[in-house]
Amino acid sequence: MKITANNPTRKSWLKVSKNSDFPIQNIPFGVFLTKENITTIGTRIGNYAIDLGALHQLGYFSEIPLTDDIFMQDSLNDFISDGRKTWRLVRNRIAAIFDSNNTELQSNKKDLKIIVFNLDDVEMLLPVNIGDYTDFFASKEHATNTGTMFRDPENALLPNWLHLPVGYHGRASSIVVSETAIYRPKGQTIPKDSKIPVFGPTRLLDFELEMAFITTDVNHLGESISIDEAEDYIFGMVLFNDWSARDIQKWEYVPLGPFLGKSFASTISPWIVTMDALEPFRTKSPRQEPNPLPYLQQSGKHAFDIKLQAAIKPEGEEETIVSNSNFKYMYWTMNQQLVHHTTNGCNVRSGDMMGSGTISGPTPDSYGSMLELSWRGTKPVKLNNGSERKFINDFDEVIMRAYCENDNIRIGFGTCKGKILPTK
Amino acid sequence: MKITANNPTRKSWLKVSKNSDFPIQNIPFGVFLTKENITTIGTRIGNYAIDLGALHQLGYFSEIPLTDDIFMQDSLNDFISDGRKTWRLVRNRIAAIFDSNNTELQSNKKDLKIIVFNLDDVEMLLPVNIGDYTDFFASKEHATNTGTMFRDPENALLPNWLHLPVGYHGRASSIVVSETAIYRPKGQTIPKDSKIPVFGPTRLLDFELEMAFITTDVNHLGESISIDEAEDYIFGMVLFNDWSARDIQKWEYVPLGPFLGKSFASTISPWIVTMDALEPFRTKSPRQEPNPLPYLQQSGKHAFDIKLQAAIKPEGEEETIVSNSNFKYMYWTMNQQLVHHTTNGCNVRSGDMMGSGTISGPTPDSYGSMLELSWRGTKPVKLNNGSERKFINDFDEVIMRAYCENDNIRIGFGTCKGKILPTK
Repeated sequence: MKITANNPTRKSWLKVSKNSDFPIQNIPFGVFLTKENITTIGTRIGNYAIDLGALHQLGYFSEIPLTDDIFMQDSLNDFISDGRKTWRLVRNRIAAIFDSNNTELQSNKKDLKIIVFNLDDVEMLLPVNIGDYTDFFASKEHATNTGTMFRDPENALLPNWLHLPVGYHGRASSIVVSETAIYRPKGQTIPKDSKIPVFGPTRLLDFELEMAFITTDVNHLGESISIDEAEDYIFGMVLFNDWSARDIQKWEYVPLGPFLGKSFASTISPWIVTMDALEPFRTKSPRQEPNPLPYLQQSGKHAFDIKLQAAIKPEGEEETIVSNSNFKYMYWTMNQQLVHHTTNGCNVRSGDMMGSGTISGPTPDSYGSMLELSWRGTKPVKLNNGSERKFINDFDEVIMRAYCENDNIRIGFGTCKGKILPTK
Repeated sequence: MKITANNPTRKSWLKVSKNSDFPIQNIPFGVFLTKENITTIGTRIGNYAIDLGALHQLGYFSEIPLTDDIFMQDSLNDFISDGRKTWRLVRNRIAAIFDSNNTELQSNKKDLKIIVFNLDDVEMLLPVNIGDYTDFFASKEHATNTGTMFRDPENALLPNWLHLPVGYHGRASSIVVSETAIYRPKGQTIPKDSKIPVFGPTRLLDFELEMAFITTDVNHLGESISIDEAEDYIFGMVLFNDWSARDIQKWEYVPLGPFLGKSFASTISPWIVTMDALEPFRTKSPRQEPNPLPYLQQSGKHAFDIKLQAAIKPEGEEETIVSNSNFKYMYWTMNQQLVHHTTNGCNVRSGDMMGSGTISGPTPDSYGSMLELSWRGTKPVKLNNGSERKFINDFDEVIMRAYCENDNIRIGFGTCKGKILPTK
């Protein structure tokens, strides 16, 4: 089926500013709360939030096989379960309804009033009920940086790293939507040259600039999928800040991996941008040497050119962009991550989320965490207001942005924001 | 409120055999499917499954504030959210209804028919929708055994182990109920003396004899709880087999911990035995030296004397008990685990599950995994049919049992079974 929603010349009758992340070619999916306290699934064009529940109820999707309440839910999980064909039909139809040549809704003032809202009048909620969240460690530059810092610069990558996408199970309950306040976590840490830990607020609070993808129902327990079908199971992507408390993490993580140093909170952007919308921005992923095992081999373009940015905004001050990275730097593709995840028969469900791991580029200004940007605190990062940061302070807001751009269009993710408040 | 359900002299008018794990003093909670294809929440007395949905609909709980459909659900999550007071009221009332001196249901043939089933006529389902699953590593004997095998016998415990309950986030989607078949997982492993991994079915499939506890809603994001309130948030316990593929685990787990070596499947027993039912079996936990940090300190009896057993049953043969352990050996208590989990503000929800980690006792016949029982394959375990096992073969069934016993009563968990089938 053709993705007519991606037609780059289409204009919407809804006003979209020139540099918007949300032109009519994007049509992401999210969940929001209206002023009338109704939770609904929606999409966004420009700075308008569109209520898909109302749109469906009023018959605008009558030619698409959809259950009556599919958009009148507090999560996208059931819609995501409907599969790629349905996602395409719905995006194509939304594009048609809001096309500047289409007057069916545009001229219906009564319908308009209950379907289209100013973005400021709705509250964005977590878009999916995340059953399981997995985080990978898939940027070679990030793995090399941390290996160099904490182990051995000569052998920065561990023996398994080039053979498989290293990952771990994360905490799903503490994944929150952008603009949720984050309390500085407490925990055990080990003072330098001491053998006795102390307890208190983390002193090394960090962000991790990541993207994450959301899956549909992939497989039953005991089954695996092949690399060529992996893409069919990926619904879309979000920006992801995997907040980390480096001192807590350091003391707890051997031998079973990150735990409380991560699980106090993780922030995602509210709008899931579909893989269909990202289609024009496919690119080649880095060459893999050595060649991975056959089940991980795939030719063609399976990376995406998504520009990434992280900024720090001290309270009452302007922000400073501290990192410019790109999703295309990822050594392991999303397809490889998903296939690897099912090799053992582990079942992946609709609404599961898989994070990329910190996305660091090749140059120091493209590193995706304060740990790397300040090189373990040895090179403080200068902010525009004259202050310096080794890690994140109380009342700092971390703002992440992601967008794709070519000569015709810009498809973006909006922002993923979180402000740090003092320990509760 | 008094736990009248625990009265040790009470008899039921339902027949209960002498060594049953499920006397009228147990009253566990589970979810089952009836012959009429109805999913309901239930309890068990002897070999009878009792439909609590029907019991409630027929008015037997009219004096307890409960929502109408609280038991007509496919998971216990909402009931668990109702909190300890409600759990007690319901258990006390069930004990009264089935007391041999009570005829209200006993003499009502019409009601009986739709409330009480033979256990063989129902199919047990997963009792909770597990939002997040955490596994700890809390048996000192197990940690010492694995540290001795894989690292250094002189420094078997890592520096953090005596200071905090080490844990990691596990995979929730692949937790299945007892008697679900388990397919031998495939994955990457590294052959001895090679640097290039190979792909195929695991050759070192193992069980881990564990118990797990199920929580109610504990805290909001950013909040912590204190050790003295921890017990209020623990609903009950199940037997837990944390299946492990040792060769996959070994190659993948540094530095981010266990991933596909564990997430192919984990099995729990179907009946959640409440902490109230386990109350008579409190005992002291092992002395902790050094004293943990203040937030983990608690006096009194917070361990439970629960006898544990693991057996291997080759296809068509009798079983062989390969391990006899006890939950009281756990170095870190459930309260300590739960408190530690919330120190960083991580929110714990109703239906979350926390595993103990392998429960090994002090003697070789009490080790809780084949890894330890066969000491990494160097001491094969003899089975009654004359065969030997280093790890688990295809078509072997692993059967776990757990029960408490004193002079008056026996409270048990039934079995937690899983049969290994060849790779799909």
